[in-house]
Amino acid sequence: MICVLSGGTGGAKFVDGLRQVMPAEDITIIVNTGDDLLWWGLYVSPDLDSITYVLSGMLSRERGWGVKGDTFLCLQAMGQLGEPTWFHTGDRDLAVHLLRSRLLAEGKTLSEATAVICGKLGVKARILPMSNSRVETRVDTPAGELSFEEYFVQRWYQDPVNSVRFAGASDAEPAPGVLDAISSADAVLIAPSNPVTSIEPILAVPGIHQALLSARGKIAAVSPIVGNAPVAGPAGILMAAQGLPCSIAGVAKAYEDFLDVLICDTRDARAADALRRGGLRVQCAQTVMRSAEDKAALAREVLSLVAGNLLKEQPESNTAFRRLSPP
Amino acid sequence: MICVLSGGTGGAKFVDGLRQVMPAEDITIIVNTGDDLLWWGLYVSPDLDSITYVLSGMLSRERGWGVKGDTFLCLQAMGQLGEPTWFHTGDRDLAVHLLRSRLLAEGKTLSEATAVICGKLGVKARILPMSNSRVETRVDTPAGELSFEEYFVQRWYQDPVNSVRFAGASDAEPAPGVLDAISSADAVLIAPSNPVTSIEPILAVPGIHQALLSARGKIAAVSPIVGNAPVAGPAGILMAAQGLPCSIAGVAKAYEDFLDVLICDTRDARAADALRRGGLRVQCAQTVMRSAEDKAALAREVLSLVAGNLLKEQPESNTAFRRLSPP
Repeated sequence: MICVLSGGTGGAKFVDGLRQVMPAEDITIIVNTGDDLLWWGLYVSPDLDSITYVLSGMLSRERGWGVKGDTFLCLQAMGQLGEPTWFHTGDRDLAVHLLRSRLLAEGKTLSEATAVICGKLGVKARILPMSNSRVETRVDTPAGELSFEEYFVQRWYQDPVNSVRFAGASDAEPAPGVLDAISSADAVLIAPSNPVTSIEPILAVPGIHQALLSARGKIAAVSPIVGNAPVAGPAGILMAAQGLPCSIAGVAKAYEDFLDVLICDTRDARAADALRRGGLRVQCAQTVMRSAEDKAALAREVLSLVAGNLLKEQPESNTAFRRLSPP
Repeated sequence: MICVLSGGTGGAKFVDGLRQVMPAEDITIIVNTGDDLLWWGLYVSPDLDSITYVLSGMLSRERGWGVKGDTFLCLQAMGQLGEPTWFHTGDRDLAVHLLRSRLLAEGKTLSEATAVICGKLGVKARILPMSNSRVETRVDTPAGELSFEEYFVQRWYQDPVNSVRFAGASDAEPAPGVLDAISSADAVLIAPSNPVTSIEPILAVPGIHQALLSARGKIAAVSPIVGNAPVAGPAGILMAAQGLPCSIAGVAKAYEDFLDVLICDTRDARAADALRRGGLRVQCAQTVMRSAEDKAALAREVLSLVAGNLLKEQPESNTAFRRLSPP
């Protein structure tokens, strides 16, 4: 059993690779919910959605979020009603938000709602929100404190960042199954997600950091930073705000308490050497995932380092479907 | 000022005619909310929607409900999630349900939410729900008691009907403005809507029947029954269940306490004579509305009987828009 800690975009790509090279049933993904937002009165969980969509074959790989082939007519109509439209919610995408919101309104927890949705969509991996309590990533900027999606999507991460906090984290509890998934995993993989706003919120939930410290499996992280810049998004700015250099050294530092192996890009070979001199195990690989093959190769590389026994190429049909389906 | 009591489909056609021959600002429509339902966790008010859409130029005249040119991708996705899909909600249509549901969740009344939505959509007439309290039309059938939409849309009105009741009506209050709109109107028009499930719920709200009895303006009803059959829908079955013949005599009986003039179809000339002999004023007209011209002609006929002073043909631009826009 493998346990993955993940955010949305980079995490979805990484998980897309993992499911090609090992049975999806053996993967548990613990997902950041610090970006969750109430949107048009619906509860939207962007990272849970990306992971759910990639594992059900619904993700728009072109966009990296939302449902492939989706349309945006409700969004357009909401604009005509004077409602905000900066967070792009597709018409098919809305179905998941509607169902989740109804389940939550009926008293189900986020874990339970996630399990229902995954069941309906035929997702074989286990997707767990980090917590059923509300933990909100708040980004402090000169323009005021923003939610992560306000900072990231509405304002295109143009604001300077003073600091980041995870409101509600200290009172939160890990969702059922989270601590056990970490403790009992053959390996824990930290996806190439933003260390500050995708992984730190998970680590901020009381008990999770401790579970990582005492995990029986090896812990490996894939760096989302290549050559002193993030592969995508605002990780660099946010790392700087948290006192972390935007480099593989910064990634290593973010996870230093529990990290066994860092997987960094081949372009960071020199920086990798420096880290190795400091005692960390570092493996270089091609970490930028453009094709299905890139994703599988990275997943294979990472698994071979920490849980080679779990490697098992998945039936060709999966790949064929992936190749045939529109972006 | 004209006050119209209305359901959805037939009422929307009638209102579509009225706005061609008098200023929309002078029309108040009191709308049945007995068909309202929670659908996918959203508050949907089918008759309020039809009246709002027709007055904002958004109604699909082809279907008679929903937004013209709408798509149904969210509905399709909901089906894939195993959610019910029998009530067809379009992607653009969803925007209004989302906004209304959010406003209600924020503590606004249905009247207030309706005013907000009408404002956003540029509706110049005043649309009032009959009540801000929940009044539910319940149809008793051998298969059990059904909500109106279950009976009508989900089960295609195939069930025999034992009786109809309006749950919650006795505790309901008319929405703000309703009683005053009736009392002060130059004329009250009862749209060619189903007397049992569109108009009776309105009359069941305490105070409304009394306001009609003491209204200063004339009260005219357009018959939705032509030649012993409803123009559309289950009015015949439902009237029979309430002890009313499916004829213009049944319509007259439903409104007998306060009706001044009945407008029936020219095909009912003989039945009209019989009613006249009983003392009712009856006017024959072409009541089946197929084109914009049919609607305007009927509205003109009705207004000329009870409030001819309000007749004022509306600018050609309206009609041009109507002609150019897709169904």
